[in-house]
Amino acid sequence: MRWEDLADQPCSMARALAVVGDRWTLMILRDAFLKVRRFDDFQKSLGLARRVLSERLALLVEEGVLEKRPYQERPVRYEYRLTDKGLDLYPTVLSLIHWADKHCAGPEGPPVLHHHKTCGCDFRSVLTCSECGKKVKPRQVEARANIAAPRQPA
Amino acid sequence: MRWEDLADQPCSMARALAVVGDRWTLMILRDAFLKVRRFDDFQKSLGLARRVLSERLALLVEEGVLEKRPYQERPVRYEYRLTDKGLDLYPTVLSLIHWADKHCAGPEGPPVLHHHKTCGCDFRSVLTCSECGKKVKPRQVEARANIAAPRQPA
Repeated sequence: MRWEDLADQPCSMARALAVVGDRWTLMILRDAFLKVRRFDDFQKSLGLARRVLSERLALLVEEGVLEKRPYQERPVRYEYRLTDKGLDLYPTVLSLIHWADKHCAGPEGPPVLHHHKTCGCDFRSVLTCSECGKKVKPRQVEARANIAAPRQPA
Repeated sequence: MRWEDLADQPCSMARALAVVGDRWTLMILRDAFLKVRRFDDFQKSLGLARRVLSERLALLVEEGVLEKRPYQERPVRYEYRLTDKGLDLYPTVLSLIHWADKHCAGPEGPPVLHHHKTCGCDFRSVLTCSECGKKVKPRQVEARANIAAPRQPA
């Protein structure tokens, strides 16, 4: 199977990866959550080729993850802002950062700390159940086909 | 900057993506969480080239995300199991699946439902704060450099 075909499969992971399944795309999203908004700032932060950055931003706009908004009139210049669909990727992005904080950081610890302004503490992300509020562990979860949808693992 | 150089940056996201920043790798992890363990079963499930699968599995073993365990003696055959480091990727994988369930599923709904055996309900994943237990939203979080570590956004 080619990657392009997989994206049409009735599998949420495949569909998600058709949008964000690229390392640069995930780095762009990291920057977007750090309030980077302008092409040149993404370029400076990530140091990737302008053509690649341009393609990745265009895909994220096309998929409704980012939106282009003019911030200057003559000439018109745009910035890229996370949409609600984009903001919903925060758990994925933060979970991945915290995973690497735990497993890939050197002896000096994680390079960045995350502060929860609501409670005033530095925190780590915890995946919990929408129904009972408890922490979810992989062995407590059973995946089963939704009989209303085409059958395929996801 | 080349991708290979970025992986050496003091940034947790870059370090994470050096391990899992590949679409096939994330599909392999999805399967691993669905208890797929053997090379031929991964291959059948994903339909990707054996050489690509072999490379991706080798990287995940090298990085300590999967471990090879013999399940047969003559000839020796191995299966691939998630390590504790691998199991810790569950929040990332499940958040991404649930994001696509919400934003990319067709009118028939998500292809797979996740059942929390602990409470007996189908659930959605919620990212919460390790300190106060409340749901974490991106605008409530401030990222700041850990002064003990080299400075770089992450």
